[in-house]
Amino acid sequence: MNKRLVIRLLGAIMLIEALAMLPSMLISIVTHDGCVQAFLNTIAILCLCGMPMWLLARPKESNLRAREGFVTVALAWVILSAFGALPFVFSGMIPNYVDALFESVSGFTTTGATVFANFEGAPKGIMFWRSFTHWIGGMGVLVLTLALLPSMTGRASHLARAESPGPSFSKIVPKMGDSAKILYIIYAVLTIVEFGVLMLCGMGPYDAAIHAMGTAGTGGFSNYGASVGAFDSALIDGVITFFMVLFGINFALFYRVLTGGWRDALKSEELHWYLGIFTVCTLGVTLLIMPQYGSFVQSLRYGSFQIASIISTTGYATADYNLWHPAAQMLVLFVMFTGACAGSTAGGMKVVRVALLSKLAGREVRHTFQPRKVQVVRFEGKGTDENILAQTAVFFFAYIALILIGCFLVSLEGKYGFAANFTAALTCVNNVGPGLAEIGPMYNFAGYGPFGKLILSLLMLCGRLELFPILVLFHPAIWRKG
Amino acid sequence: MNKRLVIRLLGAIMLIEALAMLPSMLISIVTHDGCVQAFLNTIAILCLCGMPMWLLARPKESNLRAREGFVTVALAWVILSAFGALPFVFSGMIPNYVDALFESVSGFTTTGATVFANFEGAPKGIMFWRSFTHWIGGMGVLVLTLALLPSMTGRASHLARAESPGPSFSKIVPKMGDSAKILYIIYAVLTIVEFGVLMLCGMGPYDAAIHAMGTAGTGGFSNYGASVGAFDSALIDGVITFFMVLFGINFALFYRVLTGGWRDALKSEELHWYLGIFTVCTLGVTLLIMPQYGSFVQSLRYGSFQIASIISTTGYATADYNLWHPAAQMLVLFVMFTGACAGSTAGGMKVVRVALLSKLAGREVRHTFQPRKVQVVRFEGKGTDENILAQTAVFFFAYIALILIGCFLVSLEGKYGFAANFTAALTCVNNVGPGLAEIGPMYNFAGYGPFGKLILSLLMLCGRLELFPILVLFHPAIWRKG
Repeated sequence: MNKRLVIRLLGAIMLIEALAMLPSMLISIVTHDGCVQAFLNTIAILCLCGMPMWLLARPKESNLRAREGFVTVALAWVILSAFGALPFVFSGMIPNYVDALFESVSGFTTTGATVFANFEGAPKGIMFWRSFTHWIGGMGVLVLTLALLPSMTGRASHLARAESPGPSFSKIVPKMGDSAKILYIIYAVLTIVEFGVLMLCGMGPYDAAIHAMGTAGTGGFSNYGASVGAFDSALIDGVITFFMVLFGINFALFYRVLTGGWRDALKSEELHWYLGIFTVCTLGVTLLIMPQYGSFVQSLRYGSFQIASIISTTGYATADYNLWHPAAQMLVLFVMFTGACAGSTAGGMKVVRVALLSKLAGREVRHTFQPRKVQVVRFEGKGTDENILAQTAVFFFAYIALILIGCFLVSLEGKYGFAANFTAALTCVNNVGPGLAEIGPMYNFAGYGPFGKLILSLLMLCGRLELFPILVLFHPAIWRKG
Repeated sequence: MNKRLVIRLLGAIMLIEALAMLPSMLISIVTHDGCVQAFLNTIAILCLCGMPMWLLARPKESNLRAREGFVTVALAWVILSAFGALPFVFSGMIPNYVDALFESVSGFTTTGATVFANFEGAPKGIMFWRSFTHWIGGMGVLVLTLALLPSMTGRASHLARAESPGPSFSKIVPKMGDSAKILYIIYAVLTIVEFGVLMLCGMGPYDAAIHAMGTAGTGGFSNYGASVGAFDSALIDGVITFFMVLFGINFALFYRVLTGGWRDALKSEELHWYLGIFTVCTLGVTLLIMPQYGSFVQSLRYGSFQIASIISTTGYATADYNLWHPAAQMLVLFVMFTGACAGSTAGGMKVVRVALLSKLAGREVRHTFQPRKVQVVRFEGKGTDENILAQTAVFFFAYIALILIGCFLVSLEGKYGFAANFTAALTCVNNVGPGLAEIGPMYNFAGYGPFGKLILSLLMLCGRLELFPILVLFHPAIWRKG
């Protein structure tokens, strides 16, 4: 393995993280929240570790193979989370390091599960950092590195492949670095648009920034205990619902729209599946909760918000679905599984996988009584490679196995019952945020012990990187010479 | 489709069911339980319907293609269950037909979930029939037909393939009919041996017969409300634990032992996985419940019985695992997923599939950093066909999707919460019996409404026939001409 290249890249990422803390520190300075020192300490530590790694590790060749790509991505996320937790500890907002690490992992992976409960009077700079991790993590830190340092990473498609969600990575323009830059520009512009609209709806600039970043990264951290429900405004609910759905769409489609292909973009089969699932589940939930909320409009407001929040794996809440009809809860759980589109900032299985697997299962049913007929699974208008199909099916198994193993490990603590533990594992692997029962949208994860929090942090990382990059770290062969 | 052949076969199966009721009727006669008329009525109805189907539908050709095979199997199980429910209704033991159908489906599919609670004074003949359905369903009714009518069904490997559990069907001797006969003889002998051993342990002949049939079919119906726990005997617990594990083993291995291949049989990789999972989960549960039961031996007694009962998908109980440590419950849930070996009477995913998928996932992890290396998944000492691997992975998706859809549909009734509804779907698809929370081992399914019971019945049938034969019935193409 080209260890020097990995070390040099990781050094670069630590320096980028130090840079990324500057806006939050600025807010600390402006709001006099007493946390400037916490940021200064963290930045100093990051520079002290990152600078030598960046300067001294001079790789003989800059060729990044698959192996180095995956190891770099996995370690980058671990390092980012580990150092990103320090401001929480230094500021005293979350004094326990394991708790702070959980919060930091939850931030970067855009999960939005929190151990934090005292939102009143929390330091503004730290709270901004907490939400800013969503924004960085949403698009991917390695994609950011690609955008900033295209010359260094060269044609490192492995990096992007390891970090970008979905069964196959599609470059939108021929050059990797250019693709990354375009993605980041679209991402930033959409975030700023949401920020502006939320201000127009009456939100203050600080709240608007926090919630725009939480939506854009499909993270879900809010600076209110009652989440978006704290604003109690149908208008804000509607705007955030719209943007949550928007950020669940494949960013390549936005690029296609920009380059004039409205019609082409609307033809996307994955988009149809995504909006189809969203619409059906929203209607289902709306009808099921009508007896509770009285009117169709009220039910639609709460139903669409919660389904948008969960399908995009954001995790904001305006209602406690723990109190809903059990079948409505199942629909919430179902969209927790599917997630949104590949190539978006959302987590979960991704709609494209659900679509491919459903078609594959349909073919299998047909195959039982027409064994000799050869059938191709068509998606986005063309036949899908059998290798991709098989990989998708194996991915699904690994994904369910991980959730079950995670649920077992978390259960070892003996704190909660099946509903909470199972959905905790599910919500963390899918980077959603809230689950059912004791970890429902109106509760938090503070009740789990240090072991449980570490396991759940690992699940969040596995989920964000789509399992394999993190699992690769545990494979003995990767550390062998050669 | 060769409809006449299907009708003729279904007629034969109805006549076989009428025959199968004779032993139960005999017990009704001997014990004067007042239910002879219930059996006579059912037998009359079966003969009146089955005889004309058998005599009048004269197929032009006796060639059974895959399509006819799957339709026959699926319809045969529906018909068997529908008519098998009649004695419950006619005797007044379960007056509601939907409840009786649920009980009958649960019997034939060897699930063992029950809506019945008043075990004291229940008519002995009917209770015997209830358990006898386990014994018939365990090995498969079509396999029985093959054994009885080899000339009619010819080389109908589709029938056996549709009904026998596991990803691939292996004939133990070249001729189908002979294979079926050998399987049934092994099955009967093992059942009789267990019956004898239970008598030696102090059980009465009636109780011994009921519990031997329940174990052999891995069904789980008992004639006591407290299940096997009613005997409160460590010896009986041990014997039934042993036989539950035994009936979860691939029957082809028993044949290999009989033909002198002890060593060969013990080499089976699936057997190693099965016994490995059983041992690890038993030890895990034993350690987790020790604080509750005090001694290691007591914990091992209850732990091994419950794990054996669930992994073999039998469903007998001697303890309420609802009261266990949450992690112990997760282990119970885990073996509910895996099930036992292919080619046994057990339900569930089957250990062979879990093993193949685990190896496949391992290959995928390796593939991410060694993309060019071609690797073969080896099982039972030889490379596995990529088609079988892909099919297994798709099966897994269909299986999880069915559980989630089932859970949603059952939730529509709004009776129970997530833990009960999810495990109800899980336990029914896997043909286990008990679940968690309100449908735990010390409760029953009577609380669900008619809609929920019908959905769960459908799930049991889907699970017993490994999904596709039942799903085929819903595929429009199967009913087209041709």
